Amino acid sequence: MANEVRIIGLDGIPEVRPGDDLTALILKAATDQDLAFQSGDIVVITQKVVSKAEGRIVDLDDVEPGVFAMEIAERWEKDARLVEIVLRESARIVRMDHGVMICETKHGLICANAGVDSSNVEKIGTVTLLPEDPDGSAEQVRQRIEEATGAAPAVIITDTFGRPWREGHVNFAIGVAGMLPIVDYAGQVDPAGYEIKVTQMAVADELAAASELMHGKLSRMPVAVIRGYEYPQGSGTADELLRDPERDLFR
Amino acid sequence: MANEVRIIGLDGIPEVRPGDDLTALILKAATDQDLAFQSGDIVVITQKVVSKAEGRIVDLDDVEPGVFAMEIAERWEKDARLVEIVLRESARIVRMDHGVMICETKHGLICANAGVDSSNVEKIGTVTLLPEDPDGSAEQVRQRIEEATGAAPAVIITDTFGRPWREGHVNFAIGVAGMLPIVDYAGQVDPAGYEIKVTQMAVADELAAASELMHGKLSRMPVAVIRGYEYPQGSGTADELLRDPERDLFR
Repeated sequence: MANEVRIIGLDGIPEVRPGDDLTALILKAATDQDLAFQSGDIVVITQKVVSKAEGRIVDLDDVEPGVFAMEIAERWEKDARLVEIVLRESARIVRMDHGVMICETKHGLICANAGVDSSNVEKIGTVTLLPEDPDGSAEQVRQRIEEATGAAPAVIITDTFGRPWREGHVNFAIGVAGMLPIVDYAGQVDPAGYEIKVTQMAVADELAAASELMHGKLSRMPVAVIRGYEYPQGSGTADELLRDPERDLFR
Repeated sequence: MANEVRIIGLDGIPEVRPGDDLTALILKAATDQDLAFQSGDIVVITQKVVSKAEGRIVDLDDVEPGVFAMEIAERWEKDARLVEIVLRESARIVRMDHGVMICETKHGLICANAGVDSSNVEKIGTVTLLPEDPDGSAEQVRQRIEEATGAAPAVIITDTFGRPWREGHVNFAIGVAGMLPIVDYAGQVDPAGYEIKVTQMAVADELAAASELMHGKLSRMPVAVIRGYEYPQGSGTADELLRDPERDLFR
């Protein structure tokens, strides 16, 4: 049908381990369900499998917490080793209260625990860190899919963050390749002839949120393909989604 | 295909005017493109057409700005009448700087300009206000579709908000009927046996974001139907998406 965007979940991605070839797993899963990649597709991948493939896993037993981490952990009944890793992954603490740490990561992302996550790990007692260069990870998958299939989809890597003021978590884009993450309507006019002033839609975040409808939180469906959406063409990066501190009222 | 969610845009919704029967327009548009509603569908509607149908339109010429509105307007080179309406729609100003007003609406939503919007209006010099009771508006559409077709879809009403820390706008759910807006995974375990602690996904917001991929900002496609997503059953309200002030670090 025209006027239609499809979100297709990729079945059968196995548990991903350090050193695994994630793109090969994606290509195999697509082939197994008779999905041929097309240029114009958007491949949306959860951070968790990227981090695992890239070996961004830390065993808490290997972590020696510092004094600050130990103090925080004692006060809020947390694992000091986990707090230590969160601090190491942070460039800045944005808010810290009631045991919640909202951090700015070295990428400039603002999220709880600097993206350090202890859910959906294969071994209890380990945590995953965010990929070091999510844009680069996305670009690598994109290039590998193009080499293998001739189709060059856009690729988005997502993570699940909370939001100020609102309950519940939502997926956001933390890495982007092969598309612009924002559509800019500046200078265009709406049907009444009024020049549109709110001009920018964060479509990479909207695609990330849409993909989560397929991923689910528990299901083993860490990759979705979105088909039928005409994304803005260009070589964008997830940095474009980060607001300039000067223009941010909620630093 | 299994593992697939479809976002279908409804074509041919005309310019909506106060007093129009929005549900009748939706039913006609669906019939015209051979879309038969099914139970399990989610009908996602932009606030703008709901506000217009409900007559939530103000002509700026009818507004007498107060002293505070005039002072703000002069300082930031804004229209004092517009500022006055924003103040009237606000329960609280959350941040105010550089001419930006982040307001808490009477519904408890936190957004720029309390949802007052001068884009996509039929007549320049008018603005739309948010629906007074977006949950009620959603429920009304839901009931009317059920009466007409026998299928009882969930209904979400959306608006486009900015976010702290991130560039670009995204659609959020401001009204919900026929579903729970949040999926709660509390107590469930992930594949490794680790109990999931980040338990709540704001699926109504994810559905809202997904629908925007069809709406676009300029296109006349204010209604989308999402099919194939198993939303959480229940009678929820958009209030459930609002964080308790006690638990909010960014008030």
